[in-house]
Amino acid sequence: MPFGRPRPERADAARNRAHLLEVARAMIAEHGVEKLTMDALADHACLGKGTVFRRFGTRAGIFRALIDEDERAFQQKVMSGPPPLGPGADPVARLIAFGHERITFLAERHAIARASLERDDPAPAGEGNISRIHLRMLLIQAGLTRPDPGPLAVQLASALEGPFLLHLADPGRDDPDDTAIALLSTSWRFLIERLTRP
Amino acid sequence: MPFGRPRPERADAARNRAHLLEVARAMIAEHGVEKLTMDALADHACLGKGTVFRRFGTRAGIFRALIDEDERAFQQKVMSGPPPLGPGADPVARLIAFGHERITFLAERHAIARASLERDDPAPAGEGNISRIHLRMLLIQAGLTRPDPGPLAVQLASALEGPFLLHLADPGRDDPDDTAIALLSTSWRFLIERLTRP
Repeated sequence: MPFGRPRPERADAARNRAHLLEVARAMIAEHGVEKLTMDALADHACLGKGTVFRRFGTRAGIFRALIDEDERAFQQKVMSGPPPLGPGADPVARLIAFGHERITFLAERHAIARASLERDDPAPAGEGNISRIHLRMLLIQAGLTRPDPGPLAVQLASALEGPFLLHLADPGRDDPDDTAIALLSTSWRFLIERLTRP
Repeated sequence: MPFGRPRPERADAARNRAHLLEVARAMIAEHGVEKLTMDALADHACLGKGTVFRRFGTRAGIFRALIDEDERAFQQKVMSGPPPLGPGADPVARLIAFGHERITFLAERHAIARASLERDDPAPAGEGNISRIHLRMLLIQAGLTRPDPGPLAVQLASALEGPFLLHLADPGRDDPDDTAIALLSTSWRFLIERLTRP
């Protein structure tokens, strides 16, 4: 792994990686996910195929790295971005906002998430841990401490992530569109409002 | 596929298949999932390996067939078994009973579900369709018709199935135990009671 090398190369490797991901995003924006191969990425980034291979291992590895980067940015917005997604709003408003943003996040990255699946490693990249941990915290802040908020957070995280996992698992399904996003968001709001009614 | 053959062989094939599944269940009960291979099954069933191969295609195919059989039995209990899982109880009681039975069903079949995953086809066998369809019907019967009960049923089905999908996707996790089942059931009951409160 590049991050295991001696220090002088690490900054270089990180720059290389950031550059490759930037080029990959531009390629996806222009030509879609299908056209992004190891060869095409090396070509567009003016780097050797060996470099792309060392950074990402497989084609799916490129898409996993993109999702990881997006997940970190999403987490940052949840932790310290503006309310109601970030801190400062009341917990019920934050629960609703989190669900809405998470559904949109997953829907927009659906093609990338699908391409990030390795044939022999079906676990999707970001497997909903951030949802589980964050929802648990907000449930407690909203006073939902009995029964155990842990399993409830697992179930609610699954309610957010699950509909997209099913899509990933079945290549025959259409990707979720704007209508699907709006319906899931409305339904999530209803679920949270009922759950937190005094 | 054996079911595509001319009629005279179909009853025979079905008997063969039922016999193989019965033997497979006995082997799992005695030695666990790991010991059940195509060779061992053929051996215990006193049939040729070719027969096992024609019926199930792969080792994972044996486990998929077992889950399919269990899913049909489960569906039967939901459709025409005694209440509150079956018809006759009020919809809220049925929603709670369905969740409890489904969580138990998935937890008890976890090792088999894991073994049913093909390396290049990560979709688990029963992907929660029965949950989605049945929950939608019960939500409507419970008067939850606005917003659209469709997406809500998808989210609630994911809340039931999702925690087990995450376990499947990550071989490092422990299988769900009795405590996990009890916690998820309690949390499901709470979710449904809050959701359906007038």
